[in-house]
Amino acid sequence: MLAYDISKAGDDSLYHFLSRSIKDDILSGRLEPDAKLPSKRPFANSLGVSVITVENAYNQLIAEGFIYSLSRKGFFVAAIPQKNSNIQQKKPVKQSRESLHTEQAKAPHYIADFVNNQVDASTFPFTTWAKLTRKVLCEQQRELLTRSPNSGVQKLRKSIAKMLLEFHGMRVSPEQIVVGAGTDCLYAWLVQLLGFDKKFGVEDPGYSKISKIYRKLNVVCNYIPLDENGICIDQLEETCTDVVHLSPSHHFPTGKVMPVSRRYELLSWAAKSSNRYIVEDEYDSEFRMVGRPIPSLQNIDVQDKTIYINSFSKTLASTVRVGYMVLPKTLAKKFHEEFSFYICTVSNLEQYVLAKFIGEAHYEKHINRMRNFYRHRRDTLLETIRQSKIRDYIEIAEEDAGLHFILKVNTELSDEEFCERALKNGVHIRALSDYYAEAEPSQHEFIINYSSVSESRMKRAVQQLEKILE
Amino acid sequence: MLAYDISKAGDDSLYHFLSRSIKDDILSGRLEPDAKLPSKRPFANSLGVSVITVENAYNQLIAEGFIYSLSRKGFFVAAIPQKNSNIQQKKPVKQSRESLHTEQAKAPHYIADFVNNQVDASTFPFTTWAKLTRKVLCEQQRELLTRSPNSGVQKLRKSIAKMLLEFHGMRVSPEQIVVGAGTDCLYAWLVQLLGFDKKFGVEDPGYSKISKIYRKLNVVCNYIPLDENGICIDQLEETCTDVVHLSPSHHFPTGKVMPVSRRYELLSWAAKSSNRYIVEDEYDSEFRMVGRPIPSLQNIDVQDKTIYINSFSKTLASTVRVGYMVLPKTLAKKFHEEFSFYICTVSNLEQYVLAKFIGEAHYEKHINRMRNFYRHRRDTLLETIRQSKIRDYIEIAEEDAGLHFILKVNTELSDEEFCERALKNGVHIRALSDYYAEAEPSQHEFIINYSSVSESRMKRAVQQLEKILE
Repeated sequence: MLAYDISKAGDDSLYHFLSRSIKDDILSGRLEPDAKLPSKRPFANSLGVSVITVENAYNQLIAEGFIYSLSRKGFFVAAIPQKNSNIQQKKPVKQSRESLHTEQAKAPHYIADFVNNQVDASTFPFTTWAKLTRKVLCEQQRELLTRSPNSGVQKLRKSIAKMLLEFHGMRVSPEQIVVGAGTDCLYAWLVQLLGFDKKFGVEDPGYSKISKIYRKLNVVCNYIPLDENGICIDQLEETCTDVVHLSPSHHFPTGKVMPVSRRYELLSWAAKSSNRYIVEDEYDSEFRMVGRPIPSLQNIDVQDKTIYINSFSKTLASTVRVGYMVLPKTLAKKFHEEFSFYICTVSNLEQYVLAKFIGEAHYEKHINRMRNFYRHRRDTLLETIRQSKIRDYIEIAEEDAGLHFILKVNTELSDEEFCERALKNGVHIRALSDYYAEAEPSQHEFIINYSSVSESRMKRAVQQLEKILE
Repeated sequence: MLAYDISKAGDDSLYHFLSRSIKDDILSGRLEPDAKLPSKRPFANSLGVSVITVENAYNQLIAEGFIYSLSRKGFFVAAIPQKNSNIQQKKPVKQSRESLHTEQAKAPHYIADFVNNQVDASTFPFTTWAKLTRKVLCEQQRELLTRSPNSGVQKLRKSIAKMLLEFHGMRVSPEQIVVGAGTDCLYAWLVQLLGFDKKFGVEDPGYSKISKIYRKLNVVCNYIPLDENGICIDQLEETCTDVVHLSPSHHFPTGKVMPVSRRYELLSWAAKSSNRYIVEDEYDSEFRMVGRPIPSLQNIDVQDKTIYINSFSKTLASTVRVGYMVLPKTLAKKFHEEFSFYICTVSNLEQYVLAKFIGEAHYEKHINRMRNFYRHRRDTLLETIRQSKIRDYIEIAEEDAGLHFILKVNTELSDEEFCERALKNGVHIRALSDYYAEAEPSQHEFIINYSSVSESRMKRAVQQLEKILE
């Protein structure tokens, strides 16, 4: 049986030490693909830890794609294409994307809106934000009126770099960071940076806004189907895609996490041509309900092929328009050389307030609060479903994957009919099949964004779904 | 009581003749600061005009900052810092464009930087801005977290529409207005709206950033030469330009104002094809040193061919990233139909604060203050030049044209040499010839942006120029 010296865990949590040790053995090849891992109980006994610790470690490794489980058979080592010693840290995270249906005007009144995935307004840290805003307006007047570099003010880029290191173990220089008024702006700069002659590829199913933006920008945009592990590499080759845009840590809408094996395959695909790049769009990687984040592609990429993009829309509010991208060094150089005539799209006030918010650790505290808040919300909804009659008709998937999960429904109704009936009953819900462009859509799966649904409405919402299914 | 011979108004409107006459008396010193002007009714009677005429004349003078009113007390002459005989003409107003050289990092230390055209930091209305920010953060939390329509929050668009009506006589609906994080963002949307197949045309000489952006966006961008009256229409035809981008109210860098005749020629050029549009980029039309604004193209366009673009970079600060465009109704419809997936690029906080700032008349007061501030700065510089030895070598042009004027220099030095020697002497200056792309550049003309040069440095700066010319 595998043996690790648990006393060496030091400050690390036991489960994390254990998962890291196993991961090292997988990456070094000591544990071979498909090798069976010890059963939880005897393993726990031999290590002198609790069964929960082993369970947590295994769950973490499953989420990251290092191991897989077969029901009633146990846990097995996954096949990892490239062993690379520099991926020993970090983990995944998840949550849902901005809904296409909430952009304009006021939302109608639903009992529950599982399509809307804006963050809950009540969670915004107004007191702190207002305090910092007053402070910046008072103390940093000179800085407020000095034109920001086009990539954003240095204080903010430094704060972001520090945050990326602390939250995600990413080592990036502030010079690689470009701040913009939301990711839309950054996509437009990215296309200009990479070239209008490049062929872009997006995930199918996926967040349809991404392809819409690429098409509006007049570049070729291919839909690339997914298999169980994420985007199909052979389809990238077949469509001659140069730049692939994806969310490996939490695919939208399926909620899946791309296993490490596919990540390495993707990186080797990118390494094959100087034209190829990966846009890693981490729209919600700060939230983790369970376990720690999977290392980002940017983190394990040693060839400078990954452009990491994220924003503060999910963690603060989508009405605070700040996004950022981390450019590979070569592209960062190109940006600084060729884009100097552009002006940063975020106001200085917002940049300095956000820099302070991150720098003074308010952001970290806020994320922790939000994680608990949403975990509680998710747990309440899951419990409500379990105690209702619909539990016999449904299965829940990817419930650890952030601010949405998948409801697989055993029904004769078409997805369209189901959603229509739900709507008539006051429940706004969208089918997974809605997010497919060209690929064959999976049926009877529905996306449950719970971020904006208050606990008090959950019971009524579930009762409405009962009516449809009974 | 003041007496003017109204019969001399000629073709001029009565109110305009009256306001011009009073202004002349203020500028010449005949009317002293804080002198009370006649009440409207008796004044109208004595002149033989209607009360409305006097009222309109006073309103114009108030808007321009020449007089002020105290409620229930009447109208008084404002303190105009320096009376100067050569500003008795009327003209538009103007100001310089954002320098290409100030985008990154800190500016080196010059005695005077006539290239930098950022607004003077000390003029930003911090107290009011901070007060309104606190108020919005406190009172509008719900609105702050409700996603803005992609065209901007309604309160702001309404404020802008009202302001356009009051300042420029433009009648536009808030639905035609699209707010974005600076004009750069708006240009990118505009290209997507008009189509990547369109051929764009920019003024030569011109603000080089515009052509850079169009080229980065991968659209054809022609340089169109100017004649005395502005852009050459025949060249638009010859180059098959579809969309022409220009600043008729204040061309950069020449400072010229497009006469009404050319404006109408331009509109009839646009009317000849459904593909043709005019982008009217009014980067500084709020400032008027003297006289009334020429009506915008948008204002006289009855065919819905003009897209009006402006921002708050010059009037507030370039670090407040808010610009807007007024779309013709057909394009506005297209925008609302096809661009709904885009998110507004300006944070809600900034939108609501700005809406309040405009709505509560702070903006109007601020503009008036700024106009006086810059007029004083300009007059001081002109006076310094006139009292120096360089007056024998130079001629000044377009000095009423806003925040920059043209210095025509009688010198054997090439433009490059002149600028280099100036730089060695601590004076940052740029030649007009620098702004030509393809057209034959005019020589020995230099652009003097005075907006960021404090009065205390002007004498030293002019002395340095003397050294070069003597």
